[in-house]
Amino acid sequence: MKIGILGGGQLGRMFIQEALKYDDEFYVLDPNPECSCANISHYTRGDFNNYDDVLEFGRDKDVVTIEIEHVNADALEELENLGVKVVPNSNIIKIIQQKILQKKFYEENRIPSPEFEIMDGSEEEIKIQLPFVQKLNTGGYDGKGVQLIRTTQDWRNLWTQESVLEDLVDIDKELSVIVAKNENGEIKTFPVTEMVADPKLNLLDFNICPADVSEETQNQIDIIAKQFINSADSAGLFAIELFLDKNGKIWVNETAPRLHNSGHQSQEGNANSQFEQFYRVVTNLPLADTDAFGFSGMLNLVGEENHSGKVKYEGLEEVLKLPKTYVHLYGKTETKPGRKMGHINVLADSREELMEKLVYIKSLVKVITN
Amino acid sequence: MKIGILGGGQLGRMFIQEALKYDDEFYVLDPNPECSCANISHYTRGDFNNYDDVLEFGRDKDVVTIEIEHVNADALEELENLGVKVVPNSNIIKIIQQKILQKKFYEENRIPSPEFEIMDGSEEEIKIQLPFVQKLNTGGYDGKGVQLIRTTQDWRNLWTQESVLEDLVDIDKELSVIVAKNENGEIKTFPVTEMVADPKLNLLDFNICPADVSEETQNQIDIIAKQFINSADSAGLFAIELFLDKNGKIWVNETAPRLHNSGHQSQEGNANSQFEQFYRVVTNLPLADTDAFGFSGMLNLVGEENHSGKVKYEGLEEVLKLPKTYVHLYGKTETKPGRKMGHINVLADSREELMEKLVYIKSLVKVITN
Repeated sequence: MKIGILGGGQLGRMFIQEALKYDDEFYVLDPNPECSCANISHYTRGDFNNYDDVLEFGRDKDVVTIEIEHVNADALEELENLGVKVVPNSNIIKIIQQKILQKKFYEENRIPSPEFEIMDGSEEEIKIQLPFVQKLNTGGYDGKGVQLIRTTQDWRNLWTQESVLEDLVDIDKELSVIVAKNENGEIKTFPVTEMVADPKLNLLDFNICPADVSEETQNQIDIIAKQFINSADSAGLFAIELFLDKNGKIWVNETAPRLHNSGHQSQEGNANSQFEQFYRVVTNLPLADTDAFGFSGMLNLVGEENHSGKVKYEGLEEVLKLPKTYVHLYGKTETKPGRKMGHINVLADSREELMEKLVYIKSLVKVITN
Repeated sequence: MKIGILGGGQLGRMFIQEALKYDDEFYVLDPNPECSCANISHYTRGDFNNYDDVLEFGRDKDVVTIEIEHVNADALEELENLGVKVVPNSNIIKIIQQKILQKKFYEENRIPSPEFEIMDGSEEEIKIQLPFVQKLNTGGYDGKGVQLIRTTQDWRNLWTQESVLEDLVDIDKELSVIVAKNENGEIKTFPVTEMVADPKLNLLDFNICPADVSEETQNQIDIIAKQFINSADSAGLFAIELFLDKNGKIWVNETAPRLHNSGHQSQEGNANSQFEQFYRVVTNLPLADTDAFGFSGMLNLVGEENHSGKVKYEGLEEVLKLPKTYVHLYGKTETKPGRKMGHINVLADSREELMEKLVYIKSLVKVITN
């Protein structure tokens, strides 16, 4: 099968790596000829945000998919009209690309997400109470395009672009659930992941799986995942980012229509990884079992502050001495502050052992320059 | 690191697939531009048996290794003289390439292997008793170049080329142990694998790991693995094929100085696979832990009789519905009778469950043409 991927970053790379078990041909569209996928696929230089580039790239593929959601969805729609299979479909990509549409989607489909107000210039007055979260309608990524408006002082920082203004949730835990559906309508979810964020970089820091949540919380999440995947009306693999608030209620923060950082520990932690599951989705094969093998966790390898240039991974040899510890680098030669360069997965027999290992590994390893 | 591999078949492919977790560049030398590695490495068309091709290919690499042992070892020796790292070294490759040298190596290093006689034209008379096994000195592979001489009738089939004639072992079980050593001298073995052969194709049929052997047998194997790796005097990953005879004694059949079919189930069955371990060997990193996760097994996908041409895998979709079952295809588009096209790994909680799953899968899947 000729599988075309918009975007050639690490998600595409790990997808192709996993899918090398099967006999397909992978094609990648990315502006950067040194992207993570360039050497392991048929690479086309081009802009996945450009209508013509995407249309041209997709025409002769059996299926076109994405590893980043900021793509030209109109071109994907045209490919669908031309009979090319697009997974996930252009409609759900468009909804997710725009925070305003995404919020309305949750509202219409009775998926609990924080109360919100749309700021698009149509109303003079902002009615939402402080504190609240401003999310730009488009262009947000990896925590960018999101800010907290806590005090009347913060009002002066309010962005003027189209946005969603959203109630601030009193967060107890950040969670994520990955749900997949193939064209045959088969649905499977992964065990819930718990995330611990680095407040400075606003990137995930540790993932822990399975999350330590009550049966009642698990039930809420199951209902949300089911409701989302049925409403989305598209084959695909989706990562639903969730907040558990201090009253025990689950809210959807946002959804990614693709492979996700919160599922990386599934590479060694589950019977099958999110990458294998995504392959099954894209090729409409039976979905894979997602059982967890004990406890698994992940630590992002992120470029240190004040280091830009050719990357060096300090302490990696020490890490490789540890049992059930797996280093995944993304084939990027240049580091810069906050850049995701790789991750480390860990398996353990208990949550305590897992946390100890993650904290120890974090103390060992640094992403710096030579 | 620039890693050069002689041979671009499935062993190289699965090695590169695993090692995509790290930031290296892979170069492959193979005569076939449609070989399994061509699309996922920097490919050079050339003959790994040709002195000049190997020398030219290896000159600018940080390390040169093999995924097949039938390579030009003189060129590897010259690369060593030029300061290129070669793993495993040319000396042990030469010894293993020639069955006569290999047998002498076992004899000199007190590694138990069946009694033998050399047939090289220097002696008129063959003294070995019937039945015996004839192994051609060079050119044997996947069961080719080996024959059983059972009766005086069989004498007329005796090949005239240089050979080893070897006592026939009264085999109870065929076993294999994979042992790895890095340049720092660190040594690790994998749990012993038990093999069930298909008498018709003389290819492995099922692998089962860990093997069901007594403590006494395990001890014999541990001693052999240690003795072999110390005598080999080379970094490398080696698969030692063993016979357990009906008196409970272990004999070395032969050794492969490379990744091996008998280790394939380690991809999902062990904390780290033979491919990960080989990466650690080639790059002289700390060796990986090899603990088994319960029981694992492997089934080869081999081209059916009377089918030559574009491959079709019948029954694969049914297989993909089974939990903890992993399909690995080798990226080969053309099948022919007996050609290794892929394998399927299976995990289970008991040996009985494992055997049942393997037998069931074997009944489901067929490698045929369209």
